[in-house]
Amino acid sequence: MRIAILGGGQLARMMALAGLPLGFRFDIADPAADACAATLGRFHQAAYDDQVMLDELADNADLATFDFENVPQAAARYLADKIPFYPTPAALEFAQDRLLEKQLFNSLDIPTAEFYPVSSRTDLLAAIEKTGYPAVLKTRRLGYDGKGQFVLEQAEDLERAWQQLGDFELILEQFIRFDGECSVIGVRGRDGETRFWPLSRNHHRQGVLSLSIAPFSDVDLQAAAQPLCSRLMDHFDYTGVLALELFFKDGHLLANELAPRVHNSGHWTIEGAACCQFENHLRAIAGLPLGDTGVLGHSLMVNWIGALPDRQQALSIPGVHWHDYGKTARPGRKMGHATVHTETQQQRLASARRLAALADDDLERAVDQLLG
Amino acid sequence: MRIAILGGGQLARMMALAGLPLGFRFDIADPAADACAATLGRFHQAAYDDQVMLDELADNADLATFDFENVPQAAARYLADKIPFYPTPAALEFAQDRLLEKQLFNSLDIPTAEFYPVSSRTDLLAAIEKTGYPAVLKTRRLGYDGKGQFVLEQAEDLERAWQQLGDFELILEQFIRFDGECSVIGVRGRDGETRFWPLSRNHHRQGVLSLSIAPFSDVDLQAAAQPLCSRLMDHFDYTGVLALELFFKDGHLLANELAPRVHNSGHWTIEGAACCQFENHLRAIAGLPLGDTGVLGHSLMVNWIGALPDRQQALSIPGVHWHDYGKTARPGRKMGHATVHTETQQQRLASARRLAALADDDLERAVDQLLG
Repeated sequence: MRIAILGGGQLARMMALAGLPLGFRFDIADPAADACAATLGRFHQAAYDDQVMLDELADNADLATFDFENVPQAAARYLADKIPFYPTPAALEFAQDRLLEKQLFNSLDIPTAEFYPVSSRTDLLAAIEKTGYPAVLKTRRLGYDGKGQFVLEQAEDLERAWQQLGDFELILEQFIRFDGECSVIGVRGRDGETRFWPLSRNHHRQGVLSLSIAPFSDVDLQAAAQPLCSRLMDHFDYTGVLALELFFKDGHLLANELAPRVHNSGHWTIEGAACCQFENHLRAIAGLPLGDTGVLGHSLMVNWIGALPDRQQALSIPGVHWHDYGKTARPGRKMGHATVHTETQQQRLASARRLAALADDDLERAVDQLLG
Repeated sequence: MRIAILGGGQLARMMALAGLPLGFRFDIADPAADACAATLGRFHQAAYDDQVMLDELADNADLATFDFENVPQAAARYLADKIPFYPTPAALEFAQDRLLEKQLFNSLDIPTAEFYPVSSRTDLLAAIEKTGYPAVLKTRRLGYDGKGQFVLEQAEDLERAWQQLGDFELILEQFIRFDGECSVIGVRGRDGETRFWPLSRNHHRQGVLSLSIAPFSDVDLQAAAQPLCSRLMDHFDYTGVLALELFFKDGHLLANELAPRVHNSGHWTIEGAACCQFENHLRAIAGLPLGDTGVLGHSLMVNWIGALPDRQQALSIPGVHWHDYGKTARPGRKMGHATVHTETQQQRLASARRLAALADDDLERAVDQLLG
């Protein structure tokens, strides 16, 4: 079976690494000549909406998926008309627009922070009246990893925020002083069978995920999060992996955003779960039985942003596994990750501290906050 | 770092799958156009002794290894003169000749069955006087997976054996009615640090490995096997993974053969050990710290010979992991393997029975013998 992947970044790369042993072969499409998944399949370098490329994928592959939620919906729908395309392109629409996404959440009884659409300065003033300060002004589309956001702490910030973002369609959200962030990742088969990995507890820096730990053994939050993810998957008659990022505060969950794909906060599943998110996504879309999402031991993932630390030092730390995405270094770029995977929580803490210290002191402190 | 691999079979393929996340890139050389590791690196289709190809590897790669112990020694030595080559080509000499191998074992106080070199009919008659029946006549070179062997049960078999094998340099070995077969796999770093995975207990059919279980929790045999493997590795100042196949009988070990490479009986380590044999081989030859060889849970590996059974059925069995080598089916060819990996021994037995039954009844019985 040949599987086409729109997007050839690290998610496609890890999908291919998990999928080759399953007997799959890959067609990988990406506009960038140096896409890091390119060498793991037949590579099609083209814009996502290049019709010749999409026709080639349809001719070559038995089914299609994506590793990037900003694939143009028109391209996804064009391909989905020709070969099975999972998850449904409809999910992209909501992942690409923060307003539609939040409206969907609320329509499915998935709680969120207060939010208001903002198309004009008047809208903004009306919205801030309702949310109060602090609040976050965000672009509706093409925001990711903290890009296209402005935190409004006080009235003086309004003008600067408007100057920076006023050209876009926006959404104003109440700023939540949360106790923490977590994500629930589920997988749903073509037959509707659904499984969940244990929650990851996450830590972001400048809007970019920097740490995930799992299992985040909060039984109540786990029980509360799974139905939210289920509702989304059932709504879309979803096939594949879906991640839902959440805030928690006083034992309650607020949905922040969904990702209709494998997710950075699930990379720990490669070593830390019986079947990882990449393999289960492929099993789901290929119509194979889902793998066991149960965990083994205790995991912590560190993202390497902009540069990789010393591999030699990292691998000398007990329980560390290395994931170099094979990319050219660039500021802010996700270059790789490492996972600490140990039998006990104490071992995890000891190794995680040493690993985080290879990046910087701030990350080491964040590890202590999450685990200490 | 670029690593050249002489041989592009399933061992090279699994090495590359383990090595890409570590940040390695691969140059893979194999005479066969459809070598199953070919797509995971830069592929050099050529005979192993093709000097142009070997020069290319030396120009491209930082170091070299192999996935096949019948790589011509001259080719290995030629390449080793140009770039670091691990393990040492000297180990190939002994792995390629059963007589030298057994003599080496004995010189290192590694016990073996009785054996005698046979170059003539007269030698054979003299040797069988000493071993008695049954005995095994084997070609000294190019035998693997049970090929080039003849079991002599009685005097009448002598003539037929001689007609079949008399053109080759031979070795006659006492036939051991062993209690079982096992293998010890070790890894040795450039700095001499050595680690061992727990013993695998193995089952062969027609000379080809069909099942491995691990950990084979026999503390005494484990303690006895490790020093044997250590002596071999120290003798060669070895770098990388080395496997030693052993018979056990009445609590004693007899060495059967060595493989100076990752080994089929260690495939279970992909899921069943913290760091698998493929990753640790690469860590060793690249001078990185060795990974943890400790096990997680209970594993059983089934080889798929000649054809793969139904993947859908196999993956519906709890704890099953699938490894399709991406080869064209051919009788007797190793097409893939599956590993059962479970928390408890009972779960392993239940899943292993169902998995083996997908191949044939005889394999299911073998599982019962090993585990029941």
